[in-house]
Amino acid sequence: MERRVILGIDPGLAHTGWGVIAQRGGKLECLSYGCVATPSSQALSERLLKIYQQIGAVAERFAPTCVGIETVWFGENVTAAFATGQARGAALVACAEHGLHVGEYTPRQIKLAVAGTGSADKRQVQYMVGQILALAEDPHPDHAADALAAAICYTTHENALSGKGLPV
Amino acid sequence: MERRVILGIDPGLAHTGWGVIAQRGGKLECLSYGCVATPSSQALSERLLKIYQQIGAVAERFAPTCVGIETVWFGENVTAAFATGQARGAALVACAEHGLHVGEYTPRQIKLAVAGTGSADKRQVQYMVGQILALAEDPHPDHAADALAAAICYTTHENALSGKGLPV
Repeated sequence: MERRVILGIDPGLAHTGWGVIAQRGGKLECLSYGCVATPSSQALSERLLKIYQQIGAVAERFAPTCVGIETVWFGENVTAAFATGQARGAALVACAEHGLHVGEYTPRQIKLAVAGTGSADKRQVQYMVGQILALAEDPHPDHAADALAAAICYTTHENALSGKGLPV
Repeated sequence: MERRVILGIDPGLAHTGWGVIAQRGGKLECLSYGCVATPSSQALSERLLKIYQQIGAVAERFAPTCVGIETVWFGENVTAAFATGQARGAALVACAEHGLHVGEYTPRQIKLAVAGTGSADKRQVQYMVGQILALAEDPHPDHAADALAAAICYTTHENALSGKGLPV
């Protein structure tokens, strides 16, 4: 059975979580996870460059073929949407450079994929990601857990992949 | 008197305008301008990669040392803020890779810099940019004119440059 490597990204300007899993049939394995933190004292363009470079380095190191990425829900917070959009743009450029197939998921879809309910809280997501990937400890920080959850979500949405919009 | 080259960017997912000017003292000259258009039929990550690559190619070709970029006002349009944020993130990564100093300006600041009023319309901005840079024709499309206006705005905000926030 073929093994494939899937990247997951939880984009954010201050913290961009990332996680890498390997899938062989129904079996998932965690390869690595982490978080790109950028201080607000840095210039915006430098922060975005750091996100781009570090996601690129992860793609270089683990050679994933696809990526699950969260589409954040902002309510009416235009400022947050703009800031996160910039971080997401920087991360997606790195993904495109490495030829990754992109699956975009709402927080609800990701929670549903790992916790069986779209209203799971951060703690439940961390716990369930730890269980699904048989980790000795639940993944921290929550941004990394959310990224691993996005990668897991990708494996459950095989036929609903799109770079153009959200799978229903 | 030293000559320096300034890039201007009007970011957008469907259309990212760019313009390059040279400044020697109070004298401004237009070097080139254009617009990166990405069709909505393309995958999001491919569109962002195109913006990143083409802005990078412009920076490579003209070797600017600084960039003026528009911070769009979205009202309450979260979706537009998120989309434009992604395009802006992709463009800013290219700017950071080329070591450009970033100046961020509101549409009002940019209009004020070229047209003397913050409420100038698109047509007025195109006309005034054409006048200031002594172009034979007003620059088209308006995204390119807005980008040239952002570059001009940079020259009038020497002491208010920032990558961290908006100059007042």
